Amino acid sequence: MKDRKLLMIPGPIEFDPAVLSALGAPTTSHLAPNFIEAFGQALDRMCQVFLCEQGQPFVLAGSGTLAMDCAGANLIEPGDKALVVNTGYFSERFAALLERYGAQVTQVTAPVGSRPSLEQVEVALQADDYKLVTITHVDTSTAVLVDVPGIAALAREHGALVVVDGVCSVAGEELRMDEWGVDLALTASQKAIGVPPGLALLVAGPRAIEAFKQRLTPVLNYYSDWTNWLPVMHAYQARRPSYFGTPPVNLIFALNVSLGQILAEGMELRFARHQTLSRMCQAGIAGLGLGQVPVQPEFAAHTLTAPRYPAGVNGPDFLDKASQAGVTLAGGLHPAIKSEYFRIGHMGAATPGDILATIGAVEYALSGCGYEFVAGIGVQAVQAAVGDRGFLAQL
Amino acid sequence: MKDRKLLMIPGPIEFDPAVLSALGAPTTSHLAPNFIEAFGQALDRMCQVFLCEQGQPFVLAGSGTLAMDCAGANLIEPGDKALVVNTGYFSERFAALLERYGAQVTQVTAPVGSRPSLEQVEVALQADDYKLVTITHVDTSTAVLVDVPGIAALAREHGALVVVDGVCSVAGEELRMDEWGVDLALTASQKAIGVPPGLALLVAGPRAIEAFKQRLTPVLNYYSDWTNWLPVMHAYQARRPSYFGTPPVNLIFALNVSLGQILAEGMELRFARHQTLSRMCQAGIAGLGLGQVPVQPEFAAHTLTAPRYPAGVNGPDFLDKASQAGVTLAGGLHPAIKSEYFRIGHMGAATPGDILATIGAVEYALSGCGYEFVAGIGVQAVQAAVGDRGFLAQL
Repeated sequence: MKDRKLLMIPGPIEFDPAVLSALGAPTTSHLAPNFIEAFGQALDRMCQVFLCEQGQPFVLAGSGTLAMDCAGANLIEPGDKALVVNTGYFSERFAALLERYGAQVTQVTAPVGSRPSLEQVEVALQADDYKLVTITHVDTSTAVLVDVPGIAALAREHGALVVVDGVCSVAGEELRMDEWGVDLALTASQKAIGVPPGLALLVAGPRAIEAFKQRLTPVLNYYSDWTNWLPVMHAYQARRPSYFGTPPVNLIFALNVSLGQILAEGMELRFARHQTLSRMCQAGIAGLGLGQVPVQPEFAAHTLTAPRYPAGVNGPDFLDKASQAGVTLAGGLHPAIKSEYFRIGHMGAATPGDILATIGAVEYALSGCGYEFVAGIGVQAVQAAVGDRGFLAQL
Repeated sequence: MKDRKLLMIPGPIEFDPAVLSALGAPTTSHLAPNFIEAFGQALDRMCQVFLCEQGQPFVLAGSGTLAMDCAGANLIEPGDKALVVNTGYFSERFAALLERYGAQVTQVTAPVGSRPSLEQVEVALQADDYKLVTITHVDTSTAVLVDVPGIAALAREHGALVVVDGVCSVAGEELRMDEWGVDLALTASQKAIGVPPGLALLVAGPRAIEAFKQRLTPVLNYYSDWTNWLPVMHAYQARRPSYFGTPPVNLIFALNVSLGQILAEGMELRFARHQTLSRMCQAGIAGLGLGQVPVQPEFAAHTLTAPRYPAGVNGPDFLDKASQAGVTLAGGLHPAIKSEYFRIGHMGAATPGDILATIGAVEYALSGCGYEFVAGIGVQAVQAAVGDRGFLAQL
């Protein structure tokens, strides 16, 4: 057991034992009554978790990038104009993907660790006529959080569809599709949704589905084409079997268990709990005197933290020592600053105790890398930031 | 426990407990040393199972259709000519998919239950200049087996790439990529590979990779584009981590366990065991006086059997009764004859005992549907067909 590691990266995360148990249970047919019910229920629950009452959920075998692919391939026709609100690595990816399907992409950008202002977005929206705007809610590469309701309101004013890459946000970060006017949100299973990797998850609102139906050209991608998947999703939502590709039965059973847990906690409490976990983690990092990649506190996500290494600390060495101390952390991902920071994921089933264990391991690793600080000052800051409230938020 | 069902459909199948156990184990990081080793080992083992020594394996989150999508999107450029050897539902799908990526598709066809002759294929190859030929090794919709080595030899003579949809064949049906000159073979995890659904699996030979590298136009599909995945596969093969999309960690651990079991059995014994299981199943079906969809014995696959209902037996009623008797079977899938037949999968971890249990349930269901026969004549035929040899093949 001494090799057991706490997995505190921005996905995959620590999963609930009941979810893992559903994943490893003997497989049933994709046409079996118990699977039809579980799949149908999971689809219904997706709309509740995404807070999109009239949404069309899609659950497909694939990674989060497949979910982005579905959005791009089904909503873009060659020549369409798209505005990408760029906050890092995954925004770049969305731009490249949209271009692959023939979009003319304009980007609003900001320095690494910052985010484009609402004014920048508004100026861009006034300058051209966009079919859609993409927003990376939380850029997993930088932990930068974007003001989705602010941008969505502007995009709607200008008649553009609002597409949110919620890979590092859905079911953790506050996201309200209906209330905020988001037309499509997507994620991957291994993030705050709390299921091992392998599922691409999307909810498309009525305007996105309508835009898809109004296409004049065929979707350029065969596997992602909603023409193939819509009848399947409709069937399972109506508790009837259907077939296009074999659904990932075990992962979907696990998804349904996790979505049930999420809704049992309730979306409001869940958002609040992630804010608490984030406050604890950020307090620990600040207590140790480390900076963060997001340049302003309100730009920092609640699902992961991206601390900067102090001068003289070597990244691979630090990560190795944190692992020796029992906690797996992630290195930097954004090419411009890759070696300057690390990432801590705190999503889904993460607990206040996990944050303490993590900051404890960060202290061990920093100390081993020659960084000087008062031992225990990080974990003390974690505890002081929320006191009993952090633990009570779990109840 | 009375609700436990034996899953004898052509995928998902019954999985080995060690595979399910790996699937449900706590998730590690996709960059953790134990995952890097398992992924690298799984990729190496893919080449051994596909019998393609110099092949480039790909393991992606997705269904079998994604594997087809990878083949089509990466090998076809608009205007390329493709020849589809059509034996049913999944051949039709391949034709539609290739056309999506701009191929000019010609098909050689045969009546349902039959297969195009080598002469038909040769005539077609002489009439035009094809970049590739697709073959559905076993059409899951009809249980028709195609003569892959015969067609591959002809295609090679005419300079075409040979692409084999091995979804219902790889690791069960005899398939030798190197020896037969197959340039790409693909499958899905939930078939004879023996892992719950969610993985698209491909091995591309050197000529397929070369054709990809010689492309003059970008791949039209973003998620399937080998440009994104080749560096990732190369890295894990060299036991280094890399990133494009988060790999489906748990499914890949499970895959590695199953591939290890397959290679421990050995490919020759495994092919022989599937032939034995098939002989047992077909003997049972024949013993009960039922015909099969494949119109000649040599057209019948060894991974599944597609028996025709006797006159007067109603499909849904029959399947429901078989399920009551503890065995899940699959209905028809080919639109032209959907209500006239059912399907029994016998792949992967299936045992001679499973075949007896299945034919026992078929007897129960047929009897309940009013079909008259001597009770036990089916299971007797199973046992008589192979006697002790069927069980010994398990050793």
